[in-house]
Amino acid sequence: MQELPLERAFMLIEPGPVVLVTVADGRKRNVMTISWHMVLDFTPRFALKTGDWNWSFSMLMKTRECVLAIPAVDLSRKVVEVGSCSGADTDKFARFGLTPVKGKSVKAPLIAECLANIECRVVDYVEAHGIVVLDGVQAWIDAERKERRMFHAVGDGTFVVDGRTIDHRKIMEAKLPPGV
Amino acid sequence: MQELPLERAFMLIEPGPVVLVTVADGRKRNVMTISWHMVLDFTPRFALKTGDWNWSFSMLMKTRECVLAIPAVDLSRKVVEVGSCSGADTDKFARFGLTPVKGKSVKAPLIAECLANIECRVVDYVEAHGIVVLDGVQAWIDAERKERRMFHAVGDGTFVVDGRTIDHRKIMEAKLPPGV
Repeated sequence: MQELPLERAFMLIEPGPVVLVTVADGRKRNVMTISWHMVLDFTPRFALKTGDWNWSFSMLMKTRECVLAIPAVDLSRKVVEVGSCSGADTDKFARFGLTPVKGKSVKAPLIAECLANIECRVVDYVEAHGIVVLDGVQAWIDAERKERRMFHAVGDGTFVVDGRTIDHRKIMEAKLPPGV
Repeated sequence: MQELPLERAFMLIEPGPVVLVTVADGRKRNVMTISWHMVLDFTPRFALKTGDWNWSFSMLMKTRECVLAIPAVDLSRKVVEVGSCSGADTDKFARFGLTPVKGKSVKAPLIAECLANIECRVVDYVEAHGIVVLDGVQAWIDAERKERRMFHAVGDGTFVVDGRTIDHRKIMEAKLPPGV
């Protein structure tokens, strides 16, 4: 994985792909599948919805760290399977052949098979709505990976894969943040 | 537009498409373009990031109502243009040929040209993070519309269009909410 400039990391989350979220506390580790997330700022800052119904949640709150790992579509079956079982009784990294890789700023692992990884720190938890607020602190991308299409949950068990790209850069030029 | 069962409305937002958000207070109306949003619950409940940097924000806070209108890709240029000017000096409905249609539960208009519309009420504003929490109260879909592909902002002025669909329903069956 190569370093990705932090000011470009929001572009991995803004399109709304399914992501994997890893946590680790030095003894245990886990990975969960999340579609309910959004960008809050270009810095980058993110929000995701989770709570004690996810086994990773207590570790996330204790360590105040996680990694957002962005899978490409060739991992879609594994990603759905990760989301369909619990870390309480499964080492999901072992079971699904996902390779944890040491990051630079947080204890939670990167996932080697993913297209990109964003190391994050928890900056707030909005308990009334189950919203975790995260600051991205370090980002990585696999520049050599062939399959780069992300995929999006519809919510009924189907998923939409990235199709063609449209360029409206000219219209938006004045509004784009620096560095993208 | 035909009524869409409310328990299916989250499926319009979960994939992370670019949406239009309309507001109206009886005298003024506006529409803005938003990519920073997420699902918070199946009921449906949504979060979106906005604040007083958006001209619509004060009307949204005053009326506590809006409509999330989901455009298909044939509207992508208009949607980007809507996001590149301000309601302070532009009637965007007139300028971009968007047709406001009276909804059932809120004063904010549906947009006739869109694929779907979700009438929403503001249930909270998390000021620390600029997060508006919305409950969907009525949903509509244009079942006859030919172009149904949604599109996703990358953040650099390019947009990714929905491609093919993958079915992982079998794996997720036990986790799907009722009615989807």
